Amino acid sequence: MNATTSRLAGQVRVVGAGLLGASVGLGLRARGVDVLLADASPANLSLAIDYGAGRASTPDADPVLVVVCVPPDLTASVVAAELAAYPNAIVTDVASVKVAPLAALEASGAGLERADLERADLDRYVGSHPLAGRERGGAISARADLFLGRPWVVCTRPGLSRARLSLVESLILDLGATPVEMDTAAHDDAVALVSHTPQIISTLMASRLTGSSDAALRLAGQGVRDVTRIAASEPELWVQILGANAPAVADILRAFRDDLDHVLGALGDQEAPGARRALAEQLARGNAGVSRLPGKHGQDRRYAQVVVMVDDRPGELGRLLTELGEIGVNLEDLRLEHSPGAQIGLAEIAVLPESQKRAIDELSARGWRIAG
Amino acid sequence: MNATTSRLAGQVRVVGAGLLGASVGLGLRARGVDVLLADASPANLSLAIDYGAGRASTPDADPVLVVVCVPPDLTASVVAAELAAYPNAIVTDVASVKVAPLAALEASGAGLERADLERADLDRYVGSHPLAGRERGGAISARADLFLGRPWVVCTRPGLSRARLSLVESLILDLGATPVEMDTAAHDDAVALVSHTPQIISTLMASRLTGSSDAALRLAGQGVRDVTRIAASEPELWVQILGANAPAVADILRAFRDDLDHVLGALGDQEAPGARRALAEQLARGNAGVSRLPGKHGQDRRYAQVVVMVDDRPGELGRLLTELGEIGVNLEDLRLEHSPGAQIGLAEIAVLPESQKRAIDELSARGWRIAG
Repeated sequence: MNATTSRLAGQVRVVGAGLLGASVGLGLRARGVDVLLADASPANLSLAIDYGAGRASTPDADPVLVVVCVPPDLTASVVAAELAAYPNAIVTDVASVKVAPLAALEASGAGLERADLERADLDRYVGSHPLAGRERGGAISARADLFLGRPWVVCTRPGLSRARLSLVESLILDLGATPVEMDTAAHDDAVALVSHTPQIISTLMASRLTGSSDAALRLAGQGVRDVTRIAASEPELWVQILGANAPAVADILRAFRDDLDHVLGALGDQEAPGARRALAEQLARGNAGVSRLPGKHGQDRRYAQVVVMVDDRPGELGRLLTELGEIGVNLEDLRLEHSPGAQIGLAEIAVLPESQKRAIDELSARGWRIAG
Repeated sequence: MNATTSRLAGQVRVVGAGLLGASVGLGLRARGVDVLLADASPANLSLAIDYGAGRASTPDADPVLVVVCVPPDLTASVVAAELAAYPNAIVTDVASVKVAPLAALEASGAGLERADLERADLDRYVGSHPLAGRERGGAISARADLFLGRPWVVCTRPGLSRARLSLVESLILDLGATPVEMDTAAHDDAVALVSHTPQIISTLMASRLTGSSDAALRLAGQGVRDVTRIAASEPELWVQILGANAPAVADILRAFRDDLDHVLGALGDQEAPGARRALAEQLARGNAGVSRLPGKHGQDRRYAQVVVMVDDRPGELGRLLTELGEIGVNLEDLRLEHSPGAQIGLAEIAVLPESQKRAIDELSARGWRIAG
């Protein structure tokens, strides 16, 4: 990245200097953009400036773009304030829900402190949402490449001009992310399905583990670990996200509950006509659903697996993957599988199907134990 | 492993030459045990013999131990037949449910073809269950070390002698697994919680993906992938497993549904007194549940994370892990995170907390980009 390739021209104001805001600042600074930072907390602001995410915003600021990076429940009021304060700027935000803030803005001040927003002001708002993965708080966790290669949704709506969308897409491209245009309501429906509902389902499953014995948990394998991993997410943030997208999430949860009731019915009377078939069809629908998730690099291709036994000592996995590189086989994905008490693990390596045989043959020839 | 260290003395008969049966055979053969194989399918039997899992059982066989490795719905009748056929042998099985087969046996022939089982015969049955991870079918996937380091439950019940338990534990130790003694009913409750319920929950979540747009699925991240990964499991096998442990699974699913209804209530009327608090408490219970899962090596210790950016080309991850080995830091776990379209990935490395700073410092000094 260097300054000569910046698409954005002019000042960019970033409001909210947490993980996302400071990362936007760092990424833009790396391209030579003049970044003006603001935060309700002077301490947060100073920290982000110390990290090199930009300089303190000044009264004479004249940004072409304002990026609002505050928690979801503050987004609408901060966007409204920025639209009013910077009449020449496009204002975007990075909240993970998009319908509620837009609706609050369109209610023209209902519930907001600025009741003086006009249609022309609202037309300068373009909602967006970087799918930037995990939640680690604060400028201290920020990095210039946080968004590299991530999808970043830009929300379309009737009447929004191409020029304004394009300005936000310039920001996204400058940060190395991939712009994905999507209708505002479609965005919230999509994240309800692929992010918010999985979060609450994982939470509900993990909640069942609270009352069990240590002996039972000792039998836990990779399956229950995967299903419950994201249940470790921060409750405060998720109350806001789930609350702001409640109708869409509730629709999916109700359909989930209907299926759950069918499963309970089938389990309760297995000899009833069709009970086992109902279970089998539900399991098959699960197969069909998970197979629809796109693979790495956005492709739908399924990879071939090579499972290798690896001793649990420093450098062994490194040696395996180095040798895989020497053979010239690229690693598409990797999963480690351990057992309680074991001093050995399995490395499940995903490779392109055409590389599988070569990987197995050459790793075996080098003395690696191939499993399954 | 070599013949001189075998704990089992005498012939072992293995009934069912699929993945588990053939792996038991291979593991015992590696220790020099005389393994007699049987399978209802002559083709399966020949294949397992070709793979070196044992020799065909003969009419004059006199095994000290019979290991029944057939699907759950056949387990009770095959165990009964083996108890009758080999009056000097202990008979164990590897089915992933344990109450239903025992109940069928204790009903002394109810639903079985052999109605002539006596109490003394039943006392020679010891149910067991290797937590051998994933399901890949057939002798073709078998390996001598399938059970290495895995927990393998041996089910206790009133009146079962220590000598008979110990014989089955000798089998388990000879195969490199870790015996875990557990009451029969407690076993089924435990696997209902840590295996069967997560399976159906993952299936139900994945089922929601069947009707969605490709555009929505393009926003899928690691969270939904993890929650739905085991939904790819084989329906035929899981209908049997769920059916055989239906009451225990249904109990947990009903408690899950109660929590789900509370969440739906809170989402439906967020302004109701206590609604947001109910959501927050549910999310916190999820935090508490997932934190109870034991870590690698059966410990409850939480590891420290080091997140490193890795270019997506052959050998890069290998180089990283080799250097981690050179630094002397052991890798406790590893997760790769990719984004659609990205040519770069994040390696999330789990290390002991006391190694974290050194790993970060030394990897940084070697030019690796450390994130978050």
